Amino acid sequence: MSKYSLVIHGGAGTILKESMTPELEVAYRKGLQEALDKGYAVLANGGAAVEAVLAATISLEDNILFNAGCGSVFGKDGKQEMDASVMEGRELMAGAVSAVRNIRNPVLLAYAVMTQTSHVMLNGQGANDFAASIGMKTEPDEYFYSPFRYEQWKQVQHSDMVALDHNIAVKDQPGQAGKKFGTVGAAACDMQGNIAAATSTGGMTNKQWGRVGDSPIIGAGTYANNKTCAISCTGHGELFIKAVAAYDVSCLMEYKGFSLEKAINMVVHDKLMKIGGEGGMIGVDANGNAAMVFNSEGMYRGIRSNEGMNEVAIYK
Amino acid sequence: MSKYSLVIHGGAGTILKESMTPELEVAYRKGLQEALDKGYAVLANGGAAVEAVLAATISLEDNILFNAGCGSVFGKDGKQEMDASVMEGRELMAGAVSAVRNIRNPVLLAYAVMTQTSHVMLNGQGANDFAASIGMKTEPDEYFYSPFRYEQWKQVQHSDMVALDHNIAVKDQPGQAGKKFGTVGAAACDMQGNIAAATSTGGMTNKQWGRVGDSPIIGAGTYANNKTCAISCTGHGELFIKAVAAYDVSCLMEYKGFSLEKAINMVVHDKLMKIGGEGGMIGVDANGNAAMVFNSEGMYRGIRSNEGMNEVAIYK
Repeated sequence: MSKYSLVIHGGAGTILKESMTPELEVAYRKGLQEALDKGYAVLANGGAAVEAVLAATISLEDNILFNAGCGSVFGKDGKQEMDASVMEGRELMAGAVSAVRNIRNPVLLAYAVMTQTSHVMLNGQGANDFAASIGMKTEPDEYFYSPFRYEQWKQVQHSDMVALDHNIAVKDQPGQAGKKFGTVGAAACDMQGNIAAATSTGGMTNKQWGRVGDSPIIGAGTYANNKTCAISCTGHGELFIKAVAAYDVSCLMEYKGFSLEKAINMVVHDKLMKIGGEGGMIGVDANGNAAMVFNSEGMYRGIRSNEGMNEVAIYK
Repeated sequence: MSKYSLVIHGGAGTILKESMTPELEVAYRKGLQEALDKGYAVLANGGAAVEAVLAATISLEDNILFNAGCGSVFGKDGKQEMDASVMEGRELMAGAVSAVRNIRNPVLLAYAVMTQTSHVMLNGQGANDFAASIGMKTEPDEYFYSPFRYEQWKQVQHSDMVALDHNIAVKDQPGQAGKKFGTVGAAACDMQGNIAAATSTGGMTNKQWGRVGDSPIIGAGTYANNKTCAISCTGHGELFIKAVAAYDVSCLMEYKGFSLEKAINMVVHDKLMKIGGEGGMIGVDANGNAAMVFNSEGMYRGIRSNEGMNEVAIYK
């Protein structure tokens, strides 16, 4: 039995201890630990990496604190549009959805695209139609309502601004908006040495025009390949797309022989920094090594392995 | 003044001389040459690579023979949904749209996303709303009607099949459907040594559920970086997404020191073949070197350079 491990994230950005209340910090840590425990239980029971990343991501989607699933931010029209993707590294199977509405767990819909269609990516109403055709669980608009998110949206609703600040917890000054990236994700290596990654998000507050970020883009926000790594990203999506960030880590490992740690650090601290790409990423390799790296002030994150690692963290 | 060059494609797949009429072959060659000449004129006048790939791609979108723009295939609901993307290699600027309707030139809308928004990718009705807000040229449904495409769609409309065969010219047996990939694209290197690529498609006949292929995905269907290459792909989109095909060529050049020719051959003939990824790609580097490589029976393609190359081709 080889080493197995799970890493998760709940978004990155200007997350400062001085702007967090003690109660909220406790709630965030609890949410991260719950997701970590749910995903890790799958691995400890001999389950597949892809099942572990789904379990962890679903837990974060079901937590109102994170910008994904029920905690998704409001778009320009006062509704939530969500993106998600998943990839497994043994067969390079992948699934993604973007701009879906009222789906309780978008990452499960991405998984259904991967397992039940010949496609990789479905979008918008068509993706919702597919969800209906397979009986995917939906929720009414009220399920996706939270007063904090609603207030965030109300502040920018009548402007052309989008707000990247998805953290309901942070008492931002207006000028600090646009510096936090709400996304959730997980990457896992199972007992069999198979790896997988998943990412899910509600995108940007007040987004319009059907904007798609990196979260549902295979290669940008999510990638997995047993030969190299499984990666989930969080950050300024447009720049992660241009950098093809997740696959770049894989290429540095495959073509330059870099370790996961070295490759992920080069992409986050060198390649993304050079183009202003603030954010972070988490990853594993097929030997169970894990990394969580970010170039922002903080990243909600957690790691658990069968070698005794079990911690969640928020700040640098 | 350095070497400048333009390459274009109009799709790849099971394109066989024995199933083509002489008249159609003439028409295809004429359409390719026109697109080549329009893009090349931009380069010869000292224009930017990105303007050249737009000019060539627009010419192909405006030609009913190719599956993009006016010649786009019919989706499940009897309408056209089109995808396009563009990227330039100096600043890594990129724009993409997916599932847009009634836009005369989707590649111009992708360019508008790149130049007039802070986003990279817009989708569906939102992308159409953005197009309307900037006065992008639209056309009525009739503009996108062609009897050949309509017949293709009618043959599969009431099935759950999608047809990858987008070539109106080919007298296929039913069993051969699913073997041709209709996409258009261009890659160019200008006098200044800047490079760019663009891709546009109508997707799959009878597609449903908002399926998105590789054409609008930066890294998969299109990529450009002056340090390495500019690439436009055509093929079985799902597999090009999983392979992150366009960016993989760039990584082989950047991390392994491969030439464009060697890198593009490895991706098309080795990496894509291993996962069943039929299709091809065209590319240039910043020294004006160009390549057109495919693992299928044929690829509509053309190349023109200031060193005297000027040819179009269809078969192997």
